Amino acid sequence: MKKGTIKVSVLYPNGDGKTFDMDYYSNVHVPMVGGLLGDAVIGATVENGLGSAVPNTPPPFAAMGNLYFNNMEAFENSFGPNAETIMADLPNFTNIEPIIQISEVVI
Amino acid sequence: MKKGTIKVSVLYPNGDGKTFDMDYYSNVHVPMVGGLLGDAVIGATVENGLGSAVPNTPPPFAAMGNLYFNNMEAFENSFGPNAETIMADLPNFTNIEPIIQISEVVI
Repeated sequence: MKKGTIKVSVLYPNGDGKTFDMDYYSNVHVPMVGGLLGDAVIGATVENGLGSAVPNTPPPFAAMGNLYFNNMEAFENSFGPNAETIMADLPNFTNIEPIIQISEVVI
Repeated sequence: MKKGTIKVSVLYPNGDGKTFDMDYYSNVHVPMVGGLLGDAVIGATVENGLGSAVPNTPPPFAAMGNLYFNNMEAFENSFGPNAETIMADLPNFTNIEPIIQISEVVI
């Protein structure tokens, strides 16, 4: 992605009793979000957690999803009106409260 | 990136008194890591933290760096012999102990 692109990351911290349905997330939730936000989204990625720096230990995050936008306005204007609908879908695939990180692409 | 690609994320959690020199990181550290790991690295991204889901609050992570590998063996075989050199460079740009997340690309 081009330098300066806005990246919105949704990180799902792992932990005892935490569940995450990757099939629902990648096949239902992410496409739903893409449909709601429309052309404002210029890219989307999803990653499934495998491990940490120490072999045979669980990943710090069960999953991570990332959306890319040309600028902050494109994110705010598309996400704001749909935030409630998007957040209401979370219990359908996880009991984890995600961490939201907004970044700008450097490399 | 292709489904199944290995993504190694290095996340630098924010906090009081935490410092991060993005210029050194993106212009010296990341190129150094790329040089050490060589062809095993099939992609690299760097992001600078801007904010969180709540306007005008600091980002959960000061910065995030990601390296992509074709498979776990490519990561382990290239990173292992260079881990000490790479970790020894951290004090040159940050006082944060990073979180390492190993994931596989789903989307």
